[in-house]
Amino acid sequence: MQIITTIQDMRHAVREWKRQNSSIGFVPTMGYLHEGHASLIQRSVADNDHTVVSVFVNPTQFGPTEDLSTYPRDPERDQALCESLGADIVFFPNPSDMYHDPHVSVIVNGLNEHLCGLSRPIHFHGVCTVVTKLFNIVTPDRAYFGQKDAQQLAIIKKMVEDLNTPVEIIGCPIVREADGLAKSSRNTYLSPEERTAALCLSKAIFHGQHIIHQGMKSAELLQAMHAIIDKEPLARTEYIEVVDACTMETVSVIDRSVLVAMAVYIGQTRLIDNFSFPLP
Amino acid sequence: MQIITTIQDMRHAVREWKRQNSSIGFVPTMGYLHEGHASLIQRSVADNDHTVVSVFVNPTQFGPTEDLSTYPRDPERDQALCESLGADIVFFPNPSDMYHDPHVSVIVNGLNEHLCGLSRPIHFHGVCTVVTKLFNIVTPDRAYFGQKDAQQLAIIKKMVEDLNTPVEIIGCPIVREADGLAKSSRNTYLSPEERTAALCLSKAIFHGQHIIHQGMKSAELLQAMHAIIDKEPLARTEYIEVVDACTMETVSVIDRSVLVAMAVYIGQTRLIDNFSFPLP
Repeated sequence: MQIITTIQDMRHAVREWKRQNSSIGFVPTMGYLHEGHASLIQRSVADNDHTVVSVFVNPTQFGPTEDLSTYPRDPERDQALCESLGADIVFFPNPSDMYHDPHVSVIVNGLNEHLCGLSRPIHFHGVCTVVTKLFNIVTPDRAYFGQKDAQQLAIIKKMVEDLNTPVEIIGCPIVREADGLAKSSRNTYLSPEERTAALCLSKAIFHGQHIIHQGMKSAELLQAMHAIIDKEPLARTEYIEVVDACTMETVSVIDRSVLVAMAVYIGQTRLIDNFSFPLP
Repeated sequence: MQIITTIQDMRHAVREWKRQNSSIGFVPTMGYLHEGHASLIQRSVADNDHTVVSVFVNPTQFGPTEDLSTYPRDPERDQALCESLGADIVFFPNPSDMYHDPHVSVIVNGLNEHLCGLSRPIHFHGVCTVVTKLFNIVTPDRAYFGQKDAQQLAIIKKMVEDLNTPVEIIGCPIVREADGLAKSSRNTYLSPEERTAALCLSKAIFHGQHIIHQGMKSAELLQAMHAIIDKEPLARTEYIEVVDACTMETVSVIDRSVLVAMAVYIGQTRLIDNFSFPLP
């Protein structure tokens, strides 16, 4: 497995593969990899001749009060995991190589005016821009994203459609801890007490999945889910919403494919979870 | 030469070339081709194994009061010209195939707050988005743009840098009529009287090129150029500016690479012209 740190070397490596008409799978990450990322890498290795994993904590998708400086990092462990899973390249671009006096960016309208986009107004512009850049550098045939970041996945799919980006986007299921908590690099922020409290998210998700049915009013479903979060003293709900799976617009009656998504603070840590109905 | 009208067929055609590791040159145009476009196509044919010319009057780069509906069109003549110059494909995408409920776009900041960007606030966002789309569909190695649209060329170069777009951008010199008028599809709007009046643009450009020297104050140069335009009763200046060749910011003393650019109305027709100093 190769470790690459410059855009130029990354381009050079994929150029060779392209010459051989090999297929390239790509897993863009912010590092501190967990089993959720591992499932994406495994899927890419199974689907493609070659797999590239990028590890880049992208500054442009963090707001001024967000956790850019404290975001957890462990490049050696990430590298070892990628190697064990059969990735061909881990790409660690550095921020100064990625951004020098940028004037052109990729932005999203509409789809980001809901859910996480409300509290993180620049987040998805940063995501679209960096994913476009990485796609242009790695030129993958397929790219793999977790369903855990469901709004991100919907926006990336729309971006690829709107910009005719020649990459197939593959969404992969949420991976959970044995007790239900969705895997997240941010789980590492939780104290033992908060770790227990954080189970309210997956409990609300599982309960929602259990009681949801076609024709149900969203309000009923949300009330039942809110009740579970509200019982947990360390939890503070940012949102729980039922939205159209494509447009991310609020849905009042469950009469189409929907995403049920939540963001909940456990102490200072913001966690997200979701489910799709019907299953995608 | 092939005529292609769907994105799918266009992708299919270039996929074959890619498999053979052939180089692809691309000339994106709005059609109604003239000798300026011809020079781009000739250059592309000379540089690459295959050349694609796109003809697409992109609706998203026209403002609500601009000439989208009246923009001149002649697909048969365009097609014949492309064939005579050795292009391999003319791509005529249709607007409904290119845009269906778009939410993601490519925008530019800073570089568009000068020159044409001031009177055409959405223009360069539309240009960046459509060029990104066309690059993603055609996947060229090199793309050719005229220096006549100097601000567009500077913005496309910055876009390719900022988004790491894997395309080499090649700017080609302005092509002029025998009497000096820069070739433009919009020249067709001019009455015979306006056609004569329009010569004030190139006269001002040639005079500017003659008198410009390093260390000169921009104000002096602009005064001399304005005087030429002001003598023409049918002409109304939108702007004449000296700007930094990269940032498009106004320059007061000519102490670096600059672009001297103008937009002048001749009757209802808005024409542009420019020169670079020193020569690029």
